[in-house]
Amino acid sequence: MIQKYRFGTPFPTESVVKELEITAGTLPYLTVSEGDSLSFSYRMDADDAVYGLGQNVRGINKRGWLYRSKNCDEPSHTEEKNSLYATHNFLIVSGKHRTFGLFLDYSGIVSFDVGYTHLDTLVITPEDGNLDLYLIEEDSLLAIVKSFRGLIGKSYIPPKWAFGLSQSRWGYASEQDVREVARRYHENHLPLDSICLDIDYMERYKDFTVNQETFPDLPKLADDLKKEGIRLVPIIDAGVKIEEGYDVYEEGVREGYFCKRADGSNFVAGVWPGRVHFPDFLQPKARKWFGEKYQRLIDQGIEGFWNDMNEPSIFYSEEHLNEVFDEIDELKKQELDIDSFFHFQSIVSGINNNESDYRRFYHNVNGKMVRHDAIHNLYGYNMTRAAGESFLTRYPDKRLLIYSRSSCIGMHRYAGIWCGDNNSWWSHILLALQMMPSLNMVGILFCGSDIGGFLMNTTEDLSLRWHALGVFTPLMRNHSSRGTREQEPYQFDNIEMFRRVISVRYALLPYLYSEFMKAARNDGMYAMPLSFIYPEDPLACDVEDQMMIGESIMIAPVYRQNAAGRAVYLPERMKLYRFRGAESVTSEILEAGMHYLPVALDEVIFFVRPNHLVPCCKGADCVADLDESTLSLLGFVETEASYTLYHDDGFSREYDNPANFTTLTLSADGTKTASDDRITLL
Amino acid sequence: MIQKYRFGTPFPTESVVKELEITAGTLPYLTVSEGDSLSFSYRMDADDAVYGLGQNVRGINKRGWLYRSKNCDEPSHTEEKNSLYATHNFLIVSGKHRTFGLFLDYSGIVSFDVGYTHLDTLVITPEDGNLDLYLIEEDSLLAIVKSFRGLIGKSYIPPKWAFGLSQSRWGYASEQDVREVARRYHENHLPLDSICLDIDYMERYKDFTVNQETFPDLPKLADDLKKEGIRLVPIIDAGVKIEEGYDVYEEGVREGYFCKRADGSNFVAGVWPGRVHFPDFLQPKARKWFGEKYQRLIDQGIEGFWNDMNEPSIFYSEEHLNEVFDEIDELKKQELDIDSFFHFQSIVSGINNNESDYRRFYHNVNGKMVRHDAIHNLYGYNMTRAAGESFLTRYPDKRLLIYSRSSCIGMHRYAGIWCGDNNSWWSHILLALQMMPSLNMVGILFCGSDIGGFLMNTTEDLSLRWHALGVFTPLMRNHSSRGTREQEPYQFDNIEMFRRVISVRYALLPYLYSEFMKAARNDGMYAMPLSFIYPEDPLACDVEDQMMIGESIMIAPVYRQNAAGRAVYLPERMKLYRFRGAESVTSEILEAGMHYLPVALDEVIFFVRPNHLVPCCKGADCVADLDESTLSLLGFVETEASYTLYHDDGFSREYDNPANFTTLTLSADGTKTASDDRITLL
Repeated sequence: MIQKYRFGTPFPTESVVKELEITAGTLPYLTVSEGDSLSFSYRMDADDAVYGLGQNVRGINKRGWLYRSKNCDEPSHTEEKNSLYATHNFLIVSGKHRTFGLFLDYSGIVSFDVGYTHLDTLVITPEDGNLDLYLIEEDSLLAIVKSFRGLIGKSYIPPKWAFGLSQSRWGYASEQDVREVARRYHENHLPLDSICLDIDYMERYKDFTVNQETFPDLPKLADDLKKEGIRLVPIIDAGVKIEEGYDVYEEGVREGYFCKRADGSNFVAGVWPGRVHFPDFLQPKARKWFGEKYQRLIDQGIEGFWNDMNEPSIFYSEEHLNEVFDEIDELKKQELDIDSFFHFQSIVSGINNNESDYRRFYHNVNGKMVRHDAIHNLYGYNMTRAAGESFLTRYPDKRLLIYSRSSCIGMHRYAGIWCGDNNSWWSHILLALQMMPSLNMVGILFCGSDIGGFLMNTTEDLSLRWHALGVFTPLMRNHSSRGTREQEPYQFDNIEMFRRVISVRYALLPYLYSEFMKAARNDGMYAMPLSFIYPEDPLACDVEDQMMIGESIMIAPVYRQNAAGRAVYLPERMKLYRFRGAESVTSEILEAGMHYLPVALDEVIFFVRPNHLVPCCKGADCVADLDESTLSLLGFVETEASYTLYHDDGFSREYDNPANFTTLTLSADGTKTASDDRITLL
Repeated sequence: MIQKYRFGTPFPTESVVKELEITAGTLPYLTVSEGDSLSFSYRMDADDAVYGLGQNVRGINKRGWLYRSKNCDEPSHTEEKNSLYATHNFLIVSGKHRTFGLFLDYSGIVSFDVGYTHLDTLVITPEDGNLDLYLIEEDSLLAIVKSFRGLIGKSYIPPKWAFGLSQSRWGYASEQDVREVARRYHENHLPLDSICLDIDYMERYKDFTVNQETFPDLPKLADDLKKEGIRLVPIIDAGVKIEEGYDVYEEGVREGYFCKRADGSNFVAGVWPGRVHFPDFLQPKARKWFGEKYQRLIDQGIEGFWNDMNEPSIFYSEEHLNEVFDEIDELKKQELDIDSFFHFQSIVSGINNNESDYRRFYHNVNGKMVRHDAIHNLYGYNMTRAAGESFLTRYPDKRLLIYSRSSCIGMHRYAGIWCGDNNSWWSHILLALQMMPSLNMVGILFCGSDIGGFLMNTTEDLSLRWHALGVFTPLMRNHSSRGTREQEPYQFDNIEMFRRVISVRYALLPYLYSEFMKAARNDGMYAMPLSFIYPEDPLACDVEDQMMIGESIMIAPVYRQNAAGRAVYLPERMKLYRFRGAESVTSEILEAGMHYLPVALDEVIFFVRPNHLVPCCKGADCVADLDESTLSLLGFVETEASYTLYHDDGFSREYDNPANFTTLTLSADGTKTASDDRITLL
């Protein structure tokens, strides 16, 4: 049951697709304070867990920290941060006595003090008093999620090739570089489905342009690679370069599609292209205009995109930069002491994404000028919605790939995300795992972290372990920054180890794709904490480094350097599968309880629940080449198990076509059946 | 057996106290490359572990990263760092086929590529070709450590009160603030032995001065607090403020005790006091002069110090600051583009500890000018040695407390360390644990991390868990930075939980102090990885989040937020003790293997090995008030167990006095004996 409470006059975020009546009564459970500022507080039991808040730092249970919903380009995902790139104001308080979900439909900044100030107290404080609050109560955590997802609409589904491995690096500077990646992948027999183009491919970082010197024939490049099963996925940034003769810039100026200063002039920010204007994505017309521009690249053979810098990230504004320069001049006149020296350093380091800059520009919302900071968290969502709406209109029958850096609730209908600019840190493997379920809760199913780590130098063992987790994340992308150690699998000594790990992804795709599609269509979760499945098992509820992936399996990635293995908790008897490559598979049944299991660097392990199945296929060099007509049926069958396989052409949007669903069964005596006789079971 | 190999003409670091003959033969095991630059390489087996490198990032097994010995003021102890505050060029390669220790006695920068570039290859590259390399081979890891420690001399031992809890914060601005800390500790019945004075106590950050406005009568303050069992521990920084009339400055100038520029003028750096000179601690005369200055504070009732900023940290030099300002002027004349904008930010953020500044000044080594960068890593060691040598001369019969931020091998003879400016991160609890054994290996036994975390805001649960680890670290100090959340135990809701945890420290002190003293006198380790004790148990060797503390116990701290407990591996049958306060003790015997154990926020747990004992006493408000004449004898006795208790007056240096040692025994039938009849066993 969902109840909707209204406070003040909320800004229409368009996060929700289902209009509910506003509940007249008072909000239960929470103490509402409506004095100087609105806040909601709740006294937590010692054992209450708090799940949610989407993309954020720290563990699965969010207790013990102060979070703040404010989208920011924050590449250093360390524990003391309060926000990352996205705002997902949904949480579930899960307790013995009371369990409920809360969604704040609100465009401003919200602080979530989840037992930070006082261990036992949750306090939610929006910046002002205008919001819709939804209280959701159901019989289970998954039912609360499902109910909430019904409110916000169905999740985006990418084309099937997007589930293949993607290779990216900021620094593929030319067509030759990109062809080299494809060549080395192939010559090393490493599967690959896409290569991302970071900002290098553009002409002076201008959206929807291609540098004709370094990428003289993008259509041919795209076409050649597609023949090898590899698609190109270019990046699109939020800011539009100010450059005379650049039509996107000129059209935007002419039509009034850019964000404005208070004086009506177009706001100027400094980002990768230098001076840019920000499209006013809150205007439906501007969205339509910008969304249509993607067609330029689609016309050149592109079928997937990533939207970046859309918090929006602001390296500097000229106004603020000049303020800083003036202040430096003043400081230079004095003899610097330590305080003024540190002040000098802090004003310079604080130029990026400076709060003052977000108060310098405005959006045109139905003719009314709304200052950016009031709707800041909606910006990235609406940029990506621009693309998503255009794709849906132009390609009603074909899925395109799109994922975004910034997001808020609602964006899951249009795109996936990647988890932003992480580091080549072991701790970020764990963070990548822990972020998945809270993203799934808000409908973002297509997601993944930059495998190997974006910033900092990676190591071979880190990369291998991260790929082994990546086998199970819907987006499996290896990405790194210019200036860091090169980290394509073929850059290392033990390429065959990478081949073994990556090939498992392809072998498991019948299962992983089925589970993704069912989660998307049924408002379910693809990645679930153990506490969602075994809520009565206190030990399972305490585990934060294992995850249920779909209905059949549990994973337990290794995320510690030099570890020969790891401790794993089994909430019930399960069957351990060890893959060393797609073809080398062993299994053993393990009893419930704690185990210490060795896991080699080139191994992928997972655990199958009793009476659950995992269909898998032989590997291939790309998703399109997978032979899914012949499946192996892994599983742990004590009596009988059946499984609903989802399979389609990978492109069309006819998700509910009954032909897409096949029932597979396996009985204890080994008898296998498939309801579709085009499928052979091994 | 130790073999000493000489390359080139090493700078005399005075790290070593035992003169060995130089071995004439060629170095075994390692491949020595002596082309353009000297390097040593070694092919590692897949299972080889590499232990050591003292204070550094990452785990106990150092494989898989590139470390670089270069002392630096680096407050962000994240995984990608290559150095922290200290240089400890000692490591042990531990393998099935070959195990040996290596010590590079060298004052320059060394890079240790421990399987970073290639997983299986260790490459050690000193900056130039002048060093002594010691190869150490013995029967076990602990024997290698003992042999090495014989080479470098006995470890520093602080007074016993230094094992009590210490409370610190950058921000105790006045006598009133300090008295308030003492008062609130006492009124909350929290034990305390010392309060640290950070730079706030000084007059304009001038070493050996006291701000007479804010601390008008330090002797009375020290005396009043000492009556309550609390000692004051002031900080001393490396740089001497340039100020006419300040005698330390004037004497240093007059006597030529400061580091010089190439032109012979005194080098000027900007640090906390503003403009400072750096004492040239490599001159014995300058060391003696500076060391004697501590007496000024000792004369006011001080018995302990911490030496800080002695890498040395340089916030800026005027020369470099002017270069940066000039460059900013140039940049402002252009229209900034993105590259020049980031360049602008990086030259400003790169002012601190800029490499160029370490090439601007010189030391007088026996009349020869040696540029600082060649001996950089010896600076903090020699600052602290200045104090240590002075204390030994003036107080041959009394121990004083001193610990330092920067260090290198050799400094352990004069002082302990604290682990520098960490963060209020859960990951730093684990790092604090993992750093202990590698510090112990190089003789630094008195050490500990800033409990609760220095930078960033702490939380109550983080602080509790960190104190529970701190129970077992020789230095148990709660320290935090100005501007962060206050984190004295009484700042939180559940003060009684802190009381329970801290009181365990005092109850266990008979054991902890005995183990520390025996490690110090016998060149042993106080904190040992499980692999050092159970080298034949591969699972024990894989554990990096548990630790042996002394001969009897193993600890397994909780370092994950919201964890109700943790997985623990027992390499053998052990007895689990749970303390909830000093008086609430339960125990149970656990079988060898994996366990998942609940651990409450106010609990301290540890595991006793078979036939081992742990003497403990009742708690008290400070170390001096402990009644150690009546001891409880905890233990896990299957047949019979005996234990050597070390106890002394806590001040004198007559460590080997037989009266300090008492043999305690406990038989399986519960019979207890003490060889000293002044001790009553409960």
